[in-house]
Amino acid sequence: LAVKPFMIITLTTDFGLKDAFVGVMKGVIASINPQAQVIDLTHGIPAQDVVAGALTLRHSVGYFPPGTIHVAVIDPGVGSARRPLLIECDGNYFIGPDNGVLSLAVDEGHRACITRLANPAYQLQPASATFHGRDIFAPAAAHVSRGVPPSAFGERLATFHRLALPKAVCGPGEITGAIIYIDHFGNLFTNIEERDLTELADARLEIVIGGGIRINGIAPHYAAVGTGDLVGITNSWGLLEIAAPGASAQRRTGVKIGDPVKLTITA
Amino acid sequence: LAVKPFMIITLTTDFGLKDAFVGVMKGVIASINPQAQVIDLTHGIPAQDVVAGALTLRHSVGYFPPGTIHVAVIDPGVGSARRPLLIECDGNYFIGPDNGVLSLAVDEGHRACITRLANPAYQLQPASATFHGRDIFAPAAAHVSRGVPPSAFGERLATFHRLALPKAVCGPGEITGAIIYIDHFGNLFTNIEERDLTELADARLEIVIGGGIRINGIAPHYAAVGTGDLVGITNSWGLLEIAAPGASAQRRTGVKIGDPVKLTITA
Amino acid sequence: LAVKPFMIITLTTDFGLKDAFVGVMKGVIASINPQAQVIDLTHGIPAQDVVAGALTLRHSVGYFPPGTIHVAVIDPGVGSARRPLLIECDGNYFIGPDNGVLSLAVDEGHRACITRLANPAYQLQPASATFHGRDIFAPAAAHVSRGVPPSAFGERLATFHRLALPKAVCGPGEITGAIIYIDHFGNLFTNIEERDLTELADARLEIVIGGGIRINGIAPHYAAVGTGDLVGITNSWGLLEIAAPGASAQRRTGVKIGDPVKLTITA
Repeated sequence: LAVKPFMIITLTTDFGLKDAFVGVMKGVIASINPQAQVIDLTHGIPAQDVVAGALTLRHSVGYFPPGTIHVAVIDPGVGSARRPLLIECDGNYFIGPDNGVLSLAVDEGHRACITRLANPAYQLQPASATFHGRDIFAPAAAHVSRGVPPSAFGERLATFHRLALPKAVCGPGEITGAIIYIDHFGNLFTNIEERDLTELADARLEIVIGGGIRINGIAPHYAAVGTGDLVGITNSWGLLEIAAPGASAQRRTGVKIGDPVKLTITA
Repeated sequence: LAVKPFMIITLTTDFGLKDAFVGVMKGVIASINPQAQVIDLTHGIPAQDVVAGALTLRHSVGYFPPGTIHVAVIDPGVGSARRPLLIECDGNYFIGPDNGVLSLAVDEGHRACITRLANPAYQLQPASATFHGRDIFAPAAAHVSRGVPPSAFGERLATFHRLALPKAVCGPGEITGAIIYIDHFGNLFTNIEERDLTELADARLEIVIGGGIRINGIAPHYAAVGTGDLVGITNSWGLLEIAAPGASAQRRTGVKIGDPVKLTITA
Repeated sequence: LAVKPFMIITLTTDFGLKDAFVGVMKGVIASINPQAQVIDLTHGIPAQDVVAGALTLRHSVGYFPPGTIHVAVIDPGVGSARRPLLIECDGNYFIGPDNGVLSLAVDEGHRACITRLANPAYQLQPASATFHGRDIFAPAAAHVSRGVPPSAFGERLATFHRLALPKAVCGPGEITGAIIYIDHFGNLFTNIEERDLTELADARLEIVIGGGIRINGIAPHYAAVGTGDLVGITNSWGLLEIAAPGASAQRRTGVKIGDPVKLTITA
């Protein structure tokens, strides 16, 4: 094999950092390809939260070089019949269980080559029933980084599991959406996209969340409002976000993932 | 010195990630050997919990390439007379205080070369009284990664401090053990080993924990039971684990490290 | 450009590790300079705590090789008119917002070259209003690591924002200071410096914190007192620290950042 230099492997898991699970995955990768460069996306995905993992991956992939190998292990079905996958799409690689965690990052409109990870020669043997991150997914990533072609890992599949996320609904004079992610700062990410907002650029807007909490308009940046005041802003994922600069909008509002957001043109 | 490429240094501490302590250790290593590759095992060991650090290291070492340098700094005696050690065993290196944290990873049956880290030429001077991770252990790891031989660091020692962990007791028709580790997910790791269980493969088993909580048998994987149901499973450390898939077995049972586990053959 | 090998970029933020913000910054860096070596100082700075970030950077810089690029993003004013900076001082580089976060690490007595990060060619475009870590600071660090000269990024500035930290006051027979930082273990860092203490080497000292809690003298190391007893010690930042070995001095005393510390010569 011609080992390519600077191959990047990213890791996204719900393993947390209390244990050595992540460190051990890196040991497995270094044992197979010491030249691979491993970057943690995050290991702070809430336990078994496949949707949060899928959203995280979707909004991160574009910031990595072509040819990056993304491993996502949020895997409540580990050890069961759910299939371990390698997907090649747009020159990047995605490795993880077939439960939807990879699906938001693999563009629906693009051609994806889906392979089942089945070849025991590219796994740690015997594979445990509880830690496929170590025994199947990390070895697969390391072997891909060394140039092993997808076809060597197992049979090609026609389809894989895709998540169906709620989309914001644009009606006359209003957009109805939902909170889909809450970050470390307590910022509330909605599923209302920047492009839905640009058409409303000059309109006066009101945002309602949490059954009656009203926010006026969309601010250009956090510091445009006072500390702790609620503000609407277009965020780094290209989504409408509700923030409370210098404080936590989550704590201020009590809003949870899935709660509705309504944006209305008031003038 | 002939610098070997791709030398790996792992770090295991109870420093947490709130402060820059870990980052500073990596700065020290990079200042001495910019080619060393540093991998965090974990910095989430509970404060001063030498046993948790020792178990973590023991179950991680086998997943790293030969020649890896493992640094473990769980060090309540920092600055006191306790000895800083470098141990070479089976082609790997172990660096840390002589309080047992290295002892479970260094196989009792194998020949270990134990050196006291005493040579000030391989330390940051003056060494602080509170942060030997920065001043003694990180420099030692970096110098070992550059090829400095153990004998250059100080006198050879005949013995070092070994932890005495409770072992599971196998009697007729039953095994009595204890909870020895609890992970991020709240999974309860026992000291009952896979090899003790294989002899019982076809028997019907009952597990009792927490003074009367009963679990029937050992499942092949987490998804074999309903969400939140307690299940026995052989885990990635090769140990019997009690889990509550999709929930925390620790929260469900209130069980703590040290609590007894009893496994009985019921048929 | 002649890419220098082993250029180190450190990251200090209040982003936490729950989200992929830090991972994405590393993706941006790797996209621009795959050879840059990124080291996390910490991402656990309390949200918007510019002083904690500045102190962390100040006490870490000395442990990195010359030429290191330090990025600090604690940035409540992100997207507003506050200026993004690149400062070259003593052969190191400092990148972050002009809110004081860089100021404690850039020695007042030394010549600093201050540049405004303004050239869009070295930013991700369009830059978001909420994540300049990704769109401005990470790209700047990566381009500096590739050898792009500071003058290419924008206009040179004469001054930048400096934090004014309270200094300990030495009077006859006493020193009055304050708690300025509290670490993961609950150790209380004061602003009383080692050099203030050396003159008192042989005196008997009493430390008073938290409105009446008395600690006798300064111990050589943590293990010199019983578990949980309060102890004064000179710590790894060269500061007087109040600790409760094996326990948390913060929890034992209820002391907060900013609370006064008084050290008195008793004999």
